[in-house]
Amino acid sequence: MYLVGIAGGSGSGKTTFSEKILKKLNGKGVALLHMDNYYLDKQPSKNFIDGQPNYDSPEAFDWKLFFKHLKALKAGQSVAMPHYNFSTSRREKRTIKVGPCRVVLVEGILSLWLEEVRNLMDLKIYLKVEADIRFTRRLHRDLSDRSRQVEDVISQYYKTVRPMHLKYTQPTQQFADIIVGEHHDVAVEVVSNHILSGSKARKRNT
Amino acid sequence: MYLVGIAGGSGSGKTTFSEKILKKLNGKGVALLHMDNYYLDKQPSKNFIDGQPNYDSPEAFDWKLFFKHLKALKAGQSVAMPHYNFSTSRREKRTIKVGPCRVVLVEGILSLWLEEVRNLMDLKIYLKVEADIRFTRRLHRDLSDRSRQVEDVISQYYKTVRPMHLKYTQPTQQFADIIVGEHHDVAVEVVSNHILSGSKARKRNT
Repeated sequence: MYLVGIAGGSGSGKTTFSEKILKKLNGKGVALLHMDNYYLDKQPSKNFIDGQPNYDSPEAFDWKLFFKHLKALKAGQSVAMPHYNFSTSRREKRTIKVGPCRVVLVEGILSLWLEEVRNLMDLKIYLKVEADIRFTRRLHRDLSDRSRQVEDVISQYYKTVRPMHLKYTQPTQQFADIIVGEHHDVAVEVVSNHILSGSKARKRNT
Repeated sequence: MYLVGIAGGSGSGKTTFSEKILKKLNGKGVALLHMDNYYLDKQPSKNFIDGQPNYDSPEAFDWKLFFKHLKALKAGQSVAMPHYNFSTSRREKRTIKVGPCRVVLVEGILSLWLEEVRNLMDLKIYLKVEADIRFTRRLHRDLSDRSRQVEDVISQYYKTVRPMHLKYTQPTQQFADIIVGEHHDVAVEVVSNHILSGSKARKRNT
Protein backbone atom coordinates (compact mmCIF):
# COMPACT_ATOMS: atom_id res chain seq x y z
CA MET A 1 0.00 0.00 0.00
CA TYR A 2 1.20 3.45 -0.91
CA LEU A 3 0.66 5.97 1.91
CA VAL A 4 0.61 9.72 1.24
CA GLY A 5 0.59 12.24 4.09
CA ILE A 6 -0.85 15.69 3.39
CA ALA A 7 -0.27 18.34 6.05
CA GLY A 8 -0.62 22.11 6.32
CA GLY A 9 -2.34 24.72 8.45
CA SER A 10 -6.07 25.23 8.77
CA GLY A 11 -7.27 26.74 5.48
CA SER A 12 -4.26 25.59 3.46
CA GLY A 13 -6.44 23.55 1.10
CA LYS A 14 -5.64 20.04 2.35
CA THR A 15 -9.13 18.67 1.71
CA THR A 16 -9.49 20.30 -1.72
CA PHE A 17 -6.01 19.13 -2.74
CA SER A 18 -6.69 15.58 -1.49
CA GLU A 19 -10.05 15.37 -3.22
CA LYS A 20 -8.58 16.53 -6.53
CA ILE A 21 -5.97 13.76 -6.33
CA LEU A 22 -8.64 11.24 -5.34
CA LYS A 23 -10.65 12.23 -8.41
CA LYS A 24 -7.62 11.78 -10.70
CA LEU A 25 -6.88 8.34 -9.23
CA ASN A 26 -10.51 7.44 -9.74
CA GLY A 27 -10.13 3.82 -8.77
CA LYS A 28 -11.03 1.11 -6.34
CA GLY A 29 -8.82 0.62 -3.34
CA VAL A 30 -8.01 4.32 -3.06
CA ALA A 31 -9.10 6.03 0.16
CA LEU A 32 -8.93 9.48 1.71
CA LEU A 33 -8.57 9.46 5.47
CA HIS A 34 -9.33 12.67 7.38
CA MET A 35 -7.24 12.74 10.53
CA ASP A 36 -10.04 14.70 12.22
CA ASN A 37 -11.85 11.40 12.65
CA TYR A 38 -9.15 10.45 15.13
CA TYR A 39 -9.97 13.21 17.60
CA LEU A 40 -10.27 11.73 21.09
CA ASP A 41 -13.83 10.92 22.05
CA LYS A 42 -13.41 13.15 25.09
CA GLN A 43 -10.72 15.82 25.44
CA PRO A 44 -8.44 15.35 28.48
CA SER A 45 -8.89 18.03 31.15
CA LYS A 46 -5.36 19.39 30.58
CA ASN A 47 -6.15 20.08 26.91
CA PHE A 48 -8.33 23.14 27.52
CA ILE A 49 -7.48 26.82 27.10
CA ASP A 50 -9.80 29.32 28.84
CA GLY A 51 -12.38 26.59 29.20
CA GLN A 52 -12.30 25.68 25.49
CA PRO A 53 -10.91 22.38 24.17
CA ASN A 54 -7.73 22.86 22.18
CA TYR A 55 -8.38 20.96 18.94
CA ASP A 56 -5.15 22.18 17.33
CA SER A 57 -2.81 20.45 19.76
CA PRO A 58 -1.38 16.92 19.36
CA GLU A 59 -3.05 16.11 22.69
CA ALA A 60 -6.45 16.31 21.01
CA PHE A 61 -5.83 13.18 18.91
CA ASP A 62 -6.03 9.45 19.52
CA TRP A 63 -2.52 8.74 18.25
CA LYS A 64 -2.54 5.11 19.37
CA LEU A 65 -5.57 4.25 17.25
CA PHE A 66 -4.42 6.44 14.36
CA PHE A 67 -1.03 4.74 14.20
CA LYS A 68 -2.57 1.27 14.63
CA HIS A 69 -4.97 1.89 11.72
CA LEU A 70 -2.28 3.24 9.40
CA LYS A 71 -0.09 0.25 10.19
CA ALA A 72 -2.97 -2.14 9.50
CA LEU A 73 -3.78 -0.40 6.18
CA LYS A 74 -0.09 -0.49 5.31
CA ALA A 75 -0.16 -4.24 5.92
CA GLY A 76 -3.04 -4.61 3.46
CA GLN A 77 -5.78 -4.99 6.06
CA SER A 78 -9.01 -3.07 6.55
CA VAL A 79 -9.84 -0.91 9.58
CA ALA A 80 -12.94 0.35 11.37
CA MET A 81 -12.33 4.08 11.20
CA PRO A 82 -14.04 6.13 13.92
CA HIS A 83 -16.58 8.70 12.85
CA TYR A 84 -16.17 12.00 14.68
CA ASN A 85 -19.22 14.19 15.00
CA PHE A 86 -18.32 17.89 14.97
CA SER A 87 -21.72 19.00 16.27
CA THR A 88 -21.55 16.92 19.42
CA SER A 89 -17.72 16.87 19.57
CA ARG A 90 -17.90 13.16 20.27
CA ARG A 91 -17.23 9.95 18.41
CA GLU A 92 -20.30 8.30 16.98
CA LYS A 93 -21.05 4.67 17.79
CA ARG A 94 -20.87 3.60 14.14
CA THR A 95 -17.49 3.21 12.47
CA ILE A 96 -16.57 3.32 8.79
CA LYS A 97 -14.84 0.40 7.10
CA VAL A 98 -11.74 1.51 5.18
CA GLY A 99 -9.54 -0.79 3.10
CA PRO A 100 -7.85 -2.89 2.07
CA CYS A 101 -6.33 -0.20 -0.16
CA ARG A 102 -3.64 0.20 -2.79
CA VAL A 103 -3.36 3.91 -2.01
CA VAL A 104 -4.31 5.88 1.11
CA LEU A 105 -4.18 9.67 1.37
CA VAL A 106 -4.12 10.97 4.95
CA GLU A 107 -4.81 14.64 5.43
CA GLY A 108 -4.62 16.60 8.67
CA ILE A 109 -2.90 19.53 10.35
CA LEU A 110 -0.69 17.12 12.31
CA SER A 111 -0.43 14.25 9.84
CA LEU A 112 3.35 14.72 9.64
CA TRP A 113 3.84 15.39 13.34
CA LEU A 114 4.60 11.97 14.84
CA GLU A 115 7.81 10.26 13.77
CA GLU A 116 6.31 6.74 13.87
CA VAL A 117 3.51 7.90 11.57
CA ARG A 118 5.91 9.69 9.21
CA ASN A 119 7.99 6.54 8.95
CA LEU A 120 4.99 4.71 7.48
CA MET A 121 4.56 7.28 4.72
CA ASP A 122 5.84 6.85 1.18
CA LEU A 123 5.26 10.47 0.22
CA LYS A 124 4.97 13.49 2.51
CA ILE A 125 3.38 16.70 1.23
CA TYR A 126 3.06 20.03 3.02
CA LEU A 127 0.69 22.73 1.80
CA LYS A 128 2.33 26.05 2.57
CA VAL A 129 -0.14 28.90 2.21
CA GLU A 130 0.25 32.41 3.62
CA ALA A 131 -1.41 32.96 7.01
CA ASP A 132 -3.76 35.74 5.86
CA ILE A 133 -5.14 33.59 3.04
CA ARG A 134 -5.59 30.67 5.42
CA PHE A 135 -7.34 32.87 7.97
CA THR A 136 -9.82 34.39 5.54
CA ARG A 137 -10.65 30.95 4.14
CA ARG A 138 -11.30 29.69 7.66
CA LEU A 139 -13.39 32.77 8.42
CA HIS A 140 -15.54 32.18 5.34
CA ARG A 141 -16.03 28.53 6.20
CA ASP A 142 -16.87 29.13 9.84
CA LEU A 143 -19.30 31.94 9.05
CA SER A 144 -21.17 30.12 6.29
CA ASP A 145 -20.93 26.41 7.18
CA ARG A 146 -20.74 26.54 10.94
CA SER A 147 -22.85 29.66 11.70
CA ARG A 148 -20.24 31.22 13.98
CA GLN A 149 -19.77 34.89 14.89
CA VAL A 150 -16.81 36.85 13.50
CA GLU A 151 -15.54 37.71 16.98
CA ASP A 152 -15.60 34.05 18.04
CA VAL A 153 -13.66 32.97 14.96
CA ILE A 154 -11.00 35.64 15.60
CA SER A 155 -10.83 34.80 19.28
CA GLN A 156 -10.34 31.07 18.62
CA TYR A 157 -7.78 31.92 15.95
CA TYR A 158 -5.54 33.77 18.43
CA LYS A 159 -6.16 31.43 21.36
CA THR A 160 -5.41 28.11 19.71
CA VAL A 161 -5.34 27.99 15.88
CA ARG A 162 -2.45 30.41 15.37
CA PRO A 163 -0.16 29.50 18.32
CA MET A 164 -0.64 25.75 17.76
CA HIS A 165 0.04 26.16 14.05
CA LEU A 166 3.35 27.90 14.76
CA LYS A 167 4.28 25.42 17.49
CA TYR A 168 3.22 22.11 15.95
CA THR A 169 2.11 22.24 12.31
CA GLN A 170 4.52 24.67 10.68
CA PRO A 171 7.67 22.88 11.92
CA THR A 172 6.53 19.67 10.16
CA GLN A 173 7.24 21.38 6.85
CA GLN A 174 10.84 20.24 7.31
CA PHE A 175 9.76 16.62 6.88
CA ALA A 176 7.93 17.12 3.57
CA ASP A 177 9.24 15.60 0.36
CA ILE A 178 7.46 18.30 -1.56
CA ILE A 179 5.96 21.61 -0.51
CA VAL A 180 3.03 23.03 -2.44
CA GLY A 181 1.71 26.60 -2.40
CA GLU A 182 -1.64 28.28 -2.84
CA HIS A 183 -1.97 27.34 -6.52
CA HIS A 184 -1.76 23.58 -6.35
CA ASP A 185 -3.23 22.28 -9.60
CA VAL A 186 0.07 21.43 -11.32
CA ALA A 187 1.15 19.63 -8.14
CA VAL A 188 -2.13 17.67 -8.21
CA GLU A 189 -1.19 16.45 -11.71
CA VAL A 190 2.38 15.62 -10.72
CA VAL A 191 1.43 13.70 -7.58
CA SER A 192 -1.49 11.88 -9.25
CA ASN A 193 0.59 10.76 -12.24
CA HIS A 194 3.33 9.60 -9.90
CA ILE A 195 0.91 7.53 -7.80
CA LEU A 196 -0.77 6.10 -10.91
CA SER A 197 2.53 5.06 -12.47
CA GLY A 198 3.54 3.43 -9.18
CA SER A 199 0.23 1.58 -8.91
CA LYS A 200 0.69 0.22 -12.41
CA ALA A 201 4.26 -0.86 -11.63
CA ARG A 202 3.12 -2.57 -8.42
CA LYS A 203 0.30 -4.27 -10.29
CA ARG A 204 2.76 -5.59 -12.91
CA ASN A 205 5.02 -6.90 -10.16
CA THR A 206 2.31 -8.92 -8.42
CA MET B 1 7.70 19.48 -25.67
CA TYR B 2 7.49 19.39 -21.87
CA LEU B 3 9.56 22.12 -20.24
CA VAL B 4 10.65 21.89 -16.59
CA GLY B 5 12.27 24.82 -14.80
CA ILE B 6 14.50 24.08 -11.81
CA ALA B 7 15.57 27.06 -9.70
CA GLY B 8 17.18 27.59 -6.32
CA GLY B 9 20.17 29.31 -4.76
CA SER B 10 23.79 28.46 -5.37
CA GLY B 11 24.47 25.14 -3.62
CA SER B 12 20.80 24.11 -3.46
CA GLY B 13 21.50 20.96 -5.50
CA LYS B 14 19.97 22.01 -8.85
CA THR B 15 22.49 20.12 -10.97
CA THR B 16 22.40 16.96 -8.82
CA PHE B 17 18.59 17.02 -8.75
CA SER B 18 18.40 17.57 -12.53
CA GLU B 19 20.90 14.84 -13.31
CA LYS B 20 19.03 12.34 -11.13
CA ILE B 21 15.83 13.07 -13.06
CA LEU B 22 17.69 12.85 -16.37
CA LYS B 23 18.99 9.42 -15.36
CA LYS B 24 15.48 8.22 -14.48
CA LEU B 25 14.11 9.48 -17.81
CA ASN B 26 16.96 7.72 -19.54
CA GLY B 27 15.67 8.37 -23.02
CA LYS B 28 16.28 10.06 -26.31
CA GLY B 29 14.95 13.53 -26.80
CA VAL B 30 15.51 14.48 -23.16
CA ALA B 31 17.93 17.34 -22.50
CA LEU B 32 19.33 19.21 -19.53
CA LEU B 33 20.03 22.86 -20.20
CA HIS B 34 22.28 24.75 -17.78
CA MET B 35 21.27 28.39 -17.79
CA ASP B 36 24.91 29.28 -17.05
CA ASN B 37 25.59 28.74 -20.75
CA TYR B 38 23.53 31.84 -21.40
CA TYR B 39 25.86 34.20 -19.54
CA LEU B 40 26.60 37.22 -21.71
CA ASP B 41 29.82 36.88 -23.65
CA LYS B 42 31.00 40.11 -22.05
CA GLN B 43 29.52 41.61 -18.88
CA PRO B 44 28.13 45.15 -19.30
CA SER B 45 30.15 47.80 -17.45
CA LYS B 46 27.24 48.56 -15.09
CA ASN B 47 27.17 44.92 -13.92
CA PHE B 48 30.30 45.14 -11.76
CA ILE B 49 30.62 45.41 -7.97
CA ASP B 50 34.01 46.56 -6.62
CA GLY B 51 35.55 45.77 -9.98
CA GLN B 52 34.18 42.21 -10.05
CA PRO B 53 31.48 41.05 -12.51
CA ASN B 54 28.20 40.26 -10.77
CA TYR B 55 27.30 36.80 -12.07
CA ASP B 56 24.34 36.47 -9.71
CA SER B 57 22.30 39.32 -11.19
CA PRO B 58 19.78 39.04 -14.03
CA GLU B 59 21.93 41.54 -15.94
CA ALA B 60 24.61 38.88 -16.34
CA PHE B 61 22.45 36.79 -18.67
CA ASP B 62 21.59 36.88 -22.37
CA TRP B 63 17.81 36.75 -21.82
CA LYS B 64 16.99 37.41 -25.45
CA LEU B 65 18.86 34.34 -26.68
CA PHE B 66 17.74 32.22 -23.71
CA PHE B 67 14.07 32.99 -24.34
CA LYS B 68 14.45 32.51 -28.11
CA HIS B 69 16.02 29.09 -27.60
CA LEU B 70 13.40 27.92 -25.12
CA LYS B 71 10.66 29.04 -27.49
CA ALA B 72 12.29 27.19 -30.39
CA LEU B 73 12.69 24.00 -28.30
CA LYS B 74 9.09 24.37 -27.18
CA ALA B 75 8.09 24.51 -30.85
CA GLY B 76 9.91 21.22 -31.50
CA GLN B 77 12.96 22.75 -33.13
CA SER B 78 16.66 22.36 -32.33
CA VAL B 79 18.93 25.19 -31.15
CA ALA B 80 22.64 25.99 -31.17
CA MET B 81 23.25 26.43 -27.45
CA PRO B 82 26.20 28.66 -26.58
CA HIS B 83 29.04 27.10 -24.62
CA TYR B 84 30.26 29.30 -21.78
CA ASN B 85 33.82 28.84 -20.63
CA PHE B 86 34.18 29.50 -16.89
CA SER B 87 37.98 29.73 -17.06
CA THR B 88 38.03 32.52 -19.61
CA SER B 89 34.59 33.90 -18.61
CA ARG B 90 33.74 34.10 -22.30
CA ARG B 91 31.58 32.23 -24.76
CA GLU B 92 33.42 29.72 -26.86
CA LYS B 93 33.12 29.83 -30.62
CA ARG B 94 31.64 26.36 -30.86
CA THR B 95 28.01 25.84 -29.94
CA ILE B 96 26.18 22.71 -28.84
CA LYS B 97 23.20 21.37 -30.76
CA VAL B 98 20.23 20.70 -28.49
CA GLY B 99 16.93 19.24 -29.63
CA PRO B 100 14.43 18.55 -30.93
CA CYS B 101 13.32 17.25 -27.53
CA ARG B 102 10.28 15.70 -25.87
CA VAL B 103 11.46 16.92 -22.47
CA VAL B 104 13.81 19.75 -21.51
CA LEU B 105 15.00 20.45 -17.97
CA VAL B 106 16.33 23.98 -17.47
CA GLU B 107 18.31 24.61 -14.31
CA GLY B 108 19.65 27.92 -13.08
CA ILE B 109 19.51 30.36 -10.18
CA LEU B 110 17.27 32.66 -12.24
CA SER B 111 15.42 30.11 -14.37
CA LEU B 112 12.09 31.21 -12.83
CA TRP B 113 12.89 34.92 -12.82
CA LEU B 114 11.50 36.21 -16.13
CA GLU B 115 7.74 36.04 -16.62
CA GLU B 116 7.98 35.27 -20.36
CA VAL B 117 10.26 32.34 -19.59
CA ARG B 118 8.03 31.09 -16.76
CA ASN B 119 5.05 31.17 -19.10
CA LEU B 120 6.76 28.63 -21.36
CA MET B 121 7.22 26.18 -18.50
CA ASP B 122 4.96 23.22 -17.82
CA LEU B 123 6.41 22.52 -14.39
CA LYS B 124 8.28 24.90 -12.10
CA ILE B 125 10.39 23.52 -9.26
CA TYR B 126 12.26 25.47 -6.58
CA LEU B 127 14.95 23.85 -4.44
CA LYS B 128 14.76 25.46 -1.04
CA VAL B 129 17.82 24.62 1.04
CA GLU B 130 19.00 26.46 4.17
CA ALA B 131 21.61 29.15 3.53
CA ASP B 132 24.33 27.61 5.73
CA ILE B 133 24.09 24.28 3.90
CA ARG B 134 24.21 26.06 0.56
CA PHE B 135 27.20 28.12 1.61
CA THR B 136 29.27 25.19 2.86
CA ARG B 137 28.52 23.23 -0.32
CA ARG B 138 29.68 26.19 -2.38
CA LEU B 139 32.77 26.56 -0.23
CA HIS B 140 33.66 22.90 -0.75
CA ARG B 141 33.15 23.16 -4.49
CA ASP B 142 35.11 26.38 -4.91
CA LEU B 143 38.01 25.14 -2.78
CA SER B 144 38.33 21.75 -4.46
CA ASP B 145 37.16 22.26 -8.06
CA ARG B 146 38.05 25.87 -8.62
CA SER B 147 41.19 26.24 -6.45
CA ARG B 148 39.97 29.39 -4.73
CA GLN B 149 40.99 30.79 -1.32
CA VAL B 150 38.56 30.66 1.61
CA GLU B 151 38.66 34.44 2.09
CA ASP B 152 37.83 35.02 -1.60
CA VAL B 153 34.87 32.66 -1.44
CA ILE B 154 33.51 34.38 1.67
CA SER B 155 34.10 37.83 0.18
CA GLN B 156 32.26 36.95 -3.06
CA TYR B 157 29.47 35.36 -1.00
CA TYR B 158 28.75 38.62 0.85
CA LYS B 159 29.36 40.93 -2.12
CA THR B 160 27.13 39.27 -4.70
CA VAL B 161 25.98 35.69 -4.01
CA ARG B 162 24.01 36.40 -0.82
CA PRO B 163 22.45 39.80 -1.66
CA MET B 164 21.51 38.73 -5.21
CA HIS B 165 20.01 35.51 -3.88
CA LEU B 166 17.79 37.45 -1.47
CA LYS B 167 16.89 40.02 -4.10
CA TYR B 168 16.34 37.89 -7.21
CA THR B 169 16.41 34.13 -6.65
CA GLN B 170 14.56 33.65 -3.36
CA PRO B 171 11.46 35.63 -4.43
CA THR B 172 10.97 33.27 -7.42
CA GLN B 173 9.98 30.57 -4.93
CA GLN B 174 6.47 32.04 -5.11
CA PHE B 175 6.13 30.90 -8.73
CA ALA B 176 7.06 27.26 -8.08
CA ASP B 177 4.51 24.50 -8.50
CA ILE B 178 6.47 22.40 -6.06
CA ILE B 179 9.19 23.26 -3.58
CA VAL B 180 11.75 20.65 -2.66
CA GLY B 181 14.13 20.65 0.30
CA GLU B 182 17.59 19.32 1.08
CA HIS B 183 16.58 15.65 0.85
CA HIS B 184 15.21 15.48 -2.66
CA ASP B 185 15.22 11.80 -3.63
CA VAL B 186 11.49 11.19 -3.17
CA ALA B 187 10.80 14.33 -5.22
CA VAL B 188 13.10 12.99 -7.95
CA GLU B 189 10.90 9.86 -8.11
CA VAL B 190 7.67 11.86 -8.12
CA VAL B 191 8.77 14.29 -10.83
CA SER B 192 10.36 11.57 -13.00
CA ASN B 193 7.29 9.34 -12.86
CA HIS B 194 5.08 12.29 -13.68
CA ILE B 195 7.17 13.25 -16.71
CA LEU B 196 7.37 9.63 -17.89
CA SER B 197 3.61 9.13 -17.62
CA GLY B 198 3.07 12.37 -19.53
CA SER B 199 5.49 11.34 -22.28
CA LYS B 200 3.63 8.05 -22.69
CA ALA B 201 0.28 9.85 -22.80
CA ARG B 202 1.58 12.31 -25.40
CA LYS B 203 3.00 9.41 -27.42
CA ARG B 204 -0.36 7.62 -27.37
CA ASN B 205 -2.10 10.77 -28.51
CA THR B 206 0.08 11.26 -31.56
